[in-house]
Amino acid sequence: MANSTALPLVLLAEQFAKLPGIGMKSAQRLAYHVMSMTDEEAQAFADAILNAHSTIKCCTECQNLTEGDVCPICGDDTRDKGTICVVETPKDISAFERTNEYKGVYHVLHGLISPLDGVTPDKIRLKELLARIGNGGVEEVIMATNPTVEGEATAMYISKLLKPLGVKVTRLAFGLPIGGTLEYADEVTLFKALENRNEI
Amino acid sequence: MANSTALPLVLLAEQFAKLPGIGMKSAQRLAYHVMSMTDEEAQAFADAILNAHSTIKCCTECQNLTEGDVCPICGDDTRDKGTICVVETPKDISAFERTNEYKGVYHVLHGLISPLDGVTPDKIRLKELLARIGNGGVEEVIMATNPTVEGEATAMYISKLLKPLGVKVTRLAFGLPIGGTLEYADEVTLFKALENRNEI
Repeated sequence: MANSTALPLVLLAEQFAKLPGIGMKSAQRLAYHVMSMTDEEAQAFADAILNAHSTIKCCTECQNLTEGDVCPICGDDTRDKGTICVVETPKDISAFERTNEYKGVYHVLHGLISPLDGVTPDKIRLKELLARIGNGGVEEVIMATNPTVEGEATAMYISKLLKPLGVKVTRLAFGLPIGGTLEYADEVTLFKALENRNEI
Repeated sequence: MANSTALPLVLLAEQFAKLPGIGMKSAQRLAYHVMSMTDEEAQAFADAILNAHSTIKCCTECQNLTEGDVCPICGDDTRDKGTICVVETPKDISAFERTNEYKGVYHVLHGLISPLDGVTPDKIRLKELLARIGNGGVEEVIMATNPTVEGEATAMYISKLLKPLGVKVTRLAFGLPIGGTLEYADEVTLFKALENRNEI
């Protein structure tokens, strides 16, 4: 920002610019927007940040973000505790929950194995997953990491760890997205769709 | 957000979604990002919002946002107080300051006349502009509102008010792309628009 701008406004814009996907110009717009809020609105915004940050912790079972000790999904007796869907981040859980189809529970890794970035297997919540399986009762682990290099590598690594424990390990199916067209599908997706074809 | 998500996180996402240009999906991403901040970072973010909101007020001269009574531009003795550039919002000033070419002062209207939206001339900082001109010493008023319907109408309205007072009123040249906004104009375009201003 030009030095004509008041310092607290520059500092606020810098805070916004630290957020993912927000560049310096957007950050300035957001900072100016905060100025047009009422005192109550600004207070509510600041409180929401601090409140979310201080009251939310990781579920002792699945590592999902939650207010209590155990998240609502792990605390729900109607969910099938024998099926664990392993995801990278808590927001992946929201995506699965929106389908209203999955009735098992989850496990959040909070990262993917990526040795080049210094993320070794001990940096993700893998011990906690092994402990859950060690407690018994788990029949299937669904690897639902993203179809990226790190996501694939993490899925392979974990499946090799779990198979000797006698747990069935599955991977999400990859293929054409529903509503997509062949014309715009990339080569790898098309290859996967062809490879995983099903009899009808 | 699905009801699997902790409430404080939903509330935080709703706060982000109120910001301009941030949809519900981006708001959720930002809320999850806040969760990955350290306590100090979250506190700094919240403080920046409250601090900017509580310490910044309008310059008594030009209505720009400032920490003190008078903004750095109005307080700068090297600026030409005889030329006033009239803009809609404080962020338009930043855009002009980045050209490093304009040596006059500014006046922020904090809005544009738009009767359909209930913004009548008394709702913008027009009285304050007339008072500054009434104090004497103003030779030229540059209308630098956006080249939109409201911006043009406001420029025409103000020029009709000011001409009887013996002040030269000019308008930015239309080097600016019509329909665009000052905020996103590049420095050269803005400088050309300033250089080729015409009397209206």
